Amino acid sequence: MNTKMINPRNLSMLCDFYELTMGNGYLLKGYGDKIAYFDVFFRSVPDGGGFAIAAGLEQVVEYIENLHFGDDDIEYLRSKHCFDERFLDYLRHFKFSGDIYAVPEGTPVFPYEPILTVRAPAIEAQLIETYVLLVLNHQTMIATKANRIVRAAQGRAVLEFGSRRAQGADAAIIGARAAYIGGCAGTACTLTDKIFGVPAGGTMAHAWVQMFDSEYEAFKAYCEIYPTNATLLVDTYNTLKSGVPNAIRVFKEMLVPKGITNFAIRLDSGDIAYLSKKARKMLDEAGLNTCKITASNALDEYLIRDLMMQGAQIDTFGVGERLITSRSTPVFGGVYKLAAVENEQGEIIPKIKVSENTAKITNPHFKKVLRYYDKESGKALADEICLRDEVVDPAQPHTIFDQYATWKTKTLTDYSVRELLEPIFRNGELVYQLPSLPDIKKYCAEQLDTLWEEVMRFENPHTYYVDLSQKLWDVKRQLLAAAKQ
Amino acid sequence: MNTKMINPRNLSMLCDFYELTMGNGYLLKGYGDKIAYFDVFFRSVPDGGGFAIAAGLEQVVEYIENLHFGDDDIEYLRSKHCFDERFLDYLRHFKFSGDIYAVPEGTPVFPYEPILTVRAPAIEAQLIETYVLLVLNHQTMIATKANRIVRAAQGRAVLEFGSRRAQGADAAIIGARAAYIGGCAGTACTLTDKIFGVPAGGTMAHAWVQMFDSEYEAFKAYCEIYPTNATLLVDTYNTLKSGVPNAIRVFKEMLVPKGITNFAIRLDSGDIAYLSKKARKMLDEAGLNTCKITASNALDEYLIRDLMMQGAQIDTFGVGERLITSRSTPVFGGVYKLAAVENEQGEIIPKIKVSENTAKITNPHFKKVLRYYDKESGKALADEICLRDEVVDPAQPHTIFDQYATWKTKTLTDYSVRELLEPIFRNGELVYQLPSLPDIKKYCAEQLDTLWEEVMRFENPHTYYVDLSQKLWDVKRQLLAAAKQ
Repeated sequence: MNTKMINPRNLSMLCDFYELTMGNGYLLKGYGDKIAYFDVFFRSVPDGGGFAIAAGLEQVVEYIENLHFGDDDIEYLRSKHCFDERFLDYLRHFKFSGDIYAVPEGTPVFPYEPILTVRAPAIEAQLIETYVLLVLNHQTMIATKANRIVRAAQGRAVLEFGSRRAQGADAAIIGARAAYIGGCAGTACTLTDKIFGVPAGGTMAHAWVQMFDSEYEAFKAYCEIYPTNATLLVDTYNTLKSGVPNAIRVFKEMLVPKGITNFAIRLDSGDIAYLSKKARKMLDEAGLNTCKITASNALDEYLIRDLMMQGAQIDTFGVGERLITSRSTPVFGGVYKLAAVENEQGEIIPKIKVSENTAKITNPHFKKVLRYYDKESGKALADEICLRDEVVDPAQPHTIFDQYATWKTKTLTDYSVRELLEPIFRNGELVYQLPSLPDIKKYCAEQLDTLWEEVMRFENPHTYYVDLSQKLWDVKRQLLAAAKQ
Repeated sequence: MNTKMINPRNLSMLCDFYELTMGNGYLLKGYGDKIAYFDVFFRSVPDGGGFAIAAGLEQVVEYIENLHFGDDDIEYLRSKHCFDERFLDYLRHFKFSGDIYAVPEGTPVFPYEPILTVRAPAIEAQLIETYVLLVLNHQTMIATKANRIVRAAQGRAVLEFGSRRAQGADAAIIGARAAYIGGCAGTACTLTDKIFGVPAGGTMAHAWVQMFDSEYEAFKAYCEIYPTNATLLVDTYNTLKSGVPNAIRVFKEMLVPKGITNFAIRLDSGDIAYLSKKARKMLDEAGLNTCKITASNALDEYLIRDLMMQGAQIDTFGVGERLITSRSTPVFGGVYKLAAVENEQGEIIPKIKVSENTAKITNPHFKKVLRYYDKESGKALADEICLRDEVVDPAQPHTIFDQYATWKTKTLTDYSVRELLEPIFRNGELVYQLPSLPDIKKYCAEQLDTLWEEVMRFENPHTYYVDLSQKLWDVKRQLLAAAKQ
């Protein structure tokens, strides 16, 4: 496979130090081969939204396939004087040997359901915690945010413009990938295009306009070199008095006579609603009704929604810092929790993390997630977290119940059912065919079509049902009762 | 030099696409060699604070030194069908040939003053815009945020714990570096220790405790393997009823008899103020008054300040997502603006970007920044942005004035003066000796000591004076008057 971001940069050491101290401890205590199950899940959706969009699996795969510790890593660890030589030797020969299940990138996902499950010897499962979380948290957050912004734009193109405000190089490069999955049409980041094929575009900054003796000459020079798809930045001096008139003059002098009609202006400051309407009128009056208007300037889903309500005449939105940092909720809180271990006979012993905060109590055992769809409308009805070996027969009615208000039940009929977690690694071998990025984007759009509008509201969305199966609920209750003693 | 993060990962293509279209245009228009001056500055301090801490210069240097376009880059660009072969050929032989001036990492900096200035042929200056901004914005933001949190902790150690919630791998690795500059004592990120020497530490997660048959056994096993510096996580089951009593038992059974006294407990959930006071009492009553208490759980400067006010008994703070993402202000808005060009005679022609918003009007010309210190107290009095060739004689009184309220003047006497922007590159050659990271951290702490307490307040700090020299003010007024016509 194409290793893209990681090789030859080895990110195996991008782990929390305690993963190594625990690993060393497991080995010395004879727990090194003990099989453990960990789930990745999250507890709340950013921005109070109704769902998140899973993303980052491709980078998890790449990381797992490249996991290794080099001589310099071993030497560094030895210098810390807390690791046993047996552990260092173990790391020298480290290769991930476990199983990983995950939801495909682009899948809408909901709080508390596993989006990735690891079954592996304890040391291995522990060592990958930080990077797996980091990459899923980051990309899931950006894909989710991008999709909110794309939905606000109601079909108008949204371009990702935020590299310069991203939190580091990966945040720019990989963030633009996630934004594309979430629905952005392209990016300004050249490297993301080169690596991932996300279409990059861009025309000019204010400096271009300032570099010439006049705005008119700057526009003219640009259209000479780039006669097609010219987008002229019109706010360097005065948008309505100088920028738009000069753009109109240049379009009419240089492009219209050649029969070129795909050009645009870009607004980057001032009141976008007002300026876009005025500019549209000026362009139309000049006969340039094919001229598109692009707007950028601290945009996000809320501002775009308001601009749309106010009848702003914008065809393309360039969105920067508020997308690439998910500014309004810049943290996605995915966690990595132990769900089970295997005893020496290979039996699964479910584990639970108890907390005074009920929302922080984990779901034990080796699990799967089923998504139920209404056969008639194709809409997603509910998800059910089950034990791994449970089977649901879609020919039979199926009753689900709320995990917190167990008396709330719902009986499903005429439904289809789909298992969300797909096998990605089996015994350390990749068994999953990574989809292409355009396919992920397409799949994401299709999956979003299965959600009810009510779940997609920006504020106070309908809470999608994520229920527990009776069997899982029984296991959980038993463990809670046992923990209480 | 040690290339650390970048090589062999080539980040030259981490640029906004418009930097390439403009570059191609400059070349074709004969502006390729035109010398341009760009300033990096910011307009507001995150979290409403009084100052920021400059960071990221080392990564700028590394990037500039590694700038190059490979065959695969050229091929990709050719496939976009908008670049002239002459430009692609230019890129093939690209090497940065300009000058860069910058404030040293760890320097407190203020809105509107240049923190980095580039003098280079227009194409070169334009091409480096995105990465230079990205890396300075990110690290300056994190160093600034970390310092707020460190100040709230009033001398107690603050450890950076946030890798899993960082916005991509660089945000974790480099973010921990910036946090260290800002005053953190260490990090959980192993790779940051290996690359940058920021001390990494960490002991156990909940999974360690759950992996054993009982909490007591888990603690015992840990203290067997790590008798010194053992920090036991006490909230897996019940902090006060189970965690702390088990920790006390194990410390007394296994460590105290050996004369070991450097151990600790970690609180990671519940009400940290209440639990820490109760735990402190239990530990003291057990005679373990050397036992330290570490706390982590969604901490930031506000929560730490409140915990301190409530008398929480905490010795070390572990701070995660709110530091590594600068959650309350996750965007640092550094910009890169054209300040001047040179004409064919090599004369500097100052350039200004006009805006209806006065705060967005740029300061023209090739400039420097002077910082004035009171000789008696050693405190910083004001910064003054001057033309590059201005000279101030500290033996003479010097009058400065506010750039927005020009009638507000202040005459300095008995002062020393220091130029903030140091030469980093001259004709493309590195002329700056990069300080070691511990030296940067130390310098930062010393520089912060020159700020008045009033400037360091978390909310509504005193606004530090950043004034313009009379000469710069004259140039600016002339350009504004000319633009108005």
